[in-house]
Amino acid sequence: MEHTYAVIMAGGGGTRLWPVSRKNKPKQLFPLLGEETLFQSTVTRLEGLFPPERILVVTVAEQARDMREQAPSIPDENYLIEPAPRGTASVIGLAAAILQQRDPQALMAILPADHHIRNRDLFHYLMCAAVDVAETDYLVTLGISPTYPSTAYGYIQQGAPLDGKSSYPVYNVQRFKEKPDEKTAQQMIRTADHSWNSGMFVWKTERILAEFARQMPELDSVLKRIAAADAGARAEMITSLWPTLKVETIDYGVMENAERVAVMPASGLGWSDVGSWDSLFEVLLPDMNGNISINSQHLALETHNTLVYGEGNERLIVTIGMDDLVIVDTGDVLLVCKSDQSQQVRDVVAHLKKHRQERYL
Amino acid sequence: MEHTYAVIMAGGGGTRLWPVSRKNKPKQLFPLLGEETLFQSTVTRLEGLFPPERILVVTVAEQARDMREQAPSIPDENYLIEPAPRGTASVIGLAAAILQQRDPQALMAILPADHHIRNRDLFHYLMCAAVDVAETDYLVTLGISPTYPSTAYGYIQQGAPLDGKSSYPVYNVQRFKEKPDEKTAQQMIRTADHSWNSGMFVWKTERILAEFARQMPELDSVLKRIAAADAGARAEMITSLWPTLKVETIDYGVMENAERVAVMPASGLGWSDVGSWDSLFEVLLPDMNGNISINSQHLALETHNTLVYGEGNERLIVTIGMDDLVIVDTGDVLLVCKSDQSQQVRDVVAHLKKHRQERYL
Repeated sequence: MEHTYAVIMAGGGGTRLWPVSRKNKPKQLFPLLGEETLFQSTVTRLEGLFPPERILVVTVAEQARDMREQAPSIPDENYLIEPAPRGTASVIGLAAAILQQRDPQALMAILPADHHIRNRDLFHYLMCAAVDVAETDYLVTLGISPTYPSTAYGYIQQGAPLDGKSSYPVYNVQRFKEKPDEKTAQQMIRTADHSWNSGMFVWKTERILAEFARQMPELDSVLKRIAAADAGARAEMITSLWPTLKVETIDYGVMENAERVAVMPASGLGWSDVGSWDSLFEVLLPDMNGNISINSQHLALETHNTLVYGEGNERLIVTIGMDDLVIVDTGDVLLVCKSDQSQQVRDVVAHLKKHRQERYL
Repeated sequence: MEHTYAVIMAGGGGTRLWPVSRKNKPKQLFPLLGEETLFQSTVTRLEGLFPPERILVVTVAEQARDMREQAPSIPDENYLIEPAPRGTASVIGLAAAILQQRDPQALMAILPADHHIRNRDLFHYLMCAAVDVAETDYLVTLGISPTYPSTAYGYIQQGAPLDGKSSYPVYNVQRFKEKPDEKTAQQMIRTADHSWNSGMFVWKTERILAEFARQMPELDSVLKRIAAADAGARAEMITSLWPTLKVETIDYGVMENAERVAVMPASGLGWSDVGSWDSLFEVLLPDMNGNISINSQHLALETHNTLVYGEGNERLIVTIGMDDLVIVDTGDVLLVCKSDQSQQVRDVVAHLKKHRQERYL
């Protein structure tokens, strides 16, 4: 694994976990699942697999300071700063260009900073297996068995098995379909050969750079100029070139039309993108009444299936006669909502934007 | 009305409006119904009826400072301090003894500090009518038509009308029954001649002192010693004698066996003892969705019949998909409960006491 690097994509925003997740401090910086932040968990999950000097973090300036504090083992120069987020294609392109210069034989494992993985041993095993496949010039994706017809995920349709590449099952990808409409999603989950794209990828840097050259020539030329610059001038060059880039995801920009894509079934990971408050009920272990208390003192009377998230202070949160509730208590906002309506925090954020209540965003 | 005095009983504790109402800062000191505190509303309700110099406040030392700040018009010497609460009999006894010395023709109107009265005009009218009746040596009570078989109130059974005493209806009291069991309460509310005791009384000080002498001789002797002391030595005497008193309410100690008791029907007052969080739904005017927001910024999505009480700060309280809820947000405690279970805050307080979590009491 000496030429293998982990690239943590950590610049994302996202409002689905508002009011904890904020414009300048998104969800990966908070201990949503307990003591560690999602970003810290992503880093500690790599222990024994990648030494800190082979972990890169791509983020934005607003978040970099918090991240350096949360993961001091990662060397300063391994933080790559985007002047502004331009989508995951640019994130991966930037990391690939810089890694390729550092180590022409580099393989990279792309890992989102804000996901949860319960089964760390299997994650390690899968990473090693994915590296074996990526060594043979495949773009390797990790697929999750769909549990409902989501229109928010990308879908991967598997083809024939790739024999002899790995002792773990791995398949050729027949089709890569990002964010389908609901009807299409329903059709896809009825067949057994579709999985969700987990957003984790493993590939050689030269392979993904070749795909950028073929499919995203504008990004490719920017990346080539950045790679050619000497280290001292690089930051300035990124700052000047970044705003010219089209905002694009790796999924639309590359994966839908990429060649030699493989998928490894990864449902056993206990993966979650922690995409809404009620997703925490699947990720964490509730008590005997179905309640979950994170960072808070919760006194529950006749209360069931209720999630309480606090700020780790000495505030006492008391519930009486409540069922199926999510309570999120931050310094300036209190959210109380029905679990199955927790996605509606997006409507709240939209309302606050419309009414220019910036302080709560 | 020149010999008539208002005596505000303001030393009470009470846990039914926890977490706002606390051991050393009970509910009358908070703006539970909006801008004014319950105590302030009790004082402003007297404007045009009693000048400040004829308003006495009986309270305990812990609350006196807050009260003086909240009602600066009342002269300092009109605050009577109990060293510790010994029940309403002692409160009324102390005020009566001191008033009797100040003005031998005094009449006193006893008014709890933590009740709400919607109809101020009728309150003024009733007070004047009650004074007319009290002038004829009656102990006058104000009665409220029962709406359910409460076991927490005292019940007054009315007898024959007292003709010629007042242009407002007034009846002889046949029986005074404090806190009945539920079966008895059910029997009493089936008849039309029972009302709840509102806790408001009007009488001559010499009449109530005579009842103390007859029914509570120990209290009577303490009161006589306090009245005989000169003003400078009085506070010290109260401090030394008060702990010897039996804790007793005026209802059990005097009213159940008092002579010449009258009752005036007072339901039209829009009275409430603000005895639980859900009682606020009756006292305040909800919006078109049935929601009530007090001292808080409430952003309600698909939310109905929900009460939100805050601390008047800039915290934003968001609810999504909630019905029939009470949310109370104080600095150190957050309460979220079903409206019809809001009485169970007493269980919470009991739990906290048992587990010695004094800070939240």
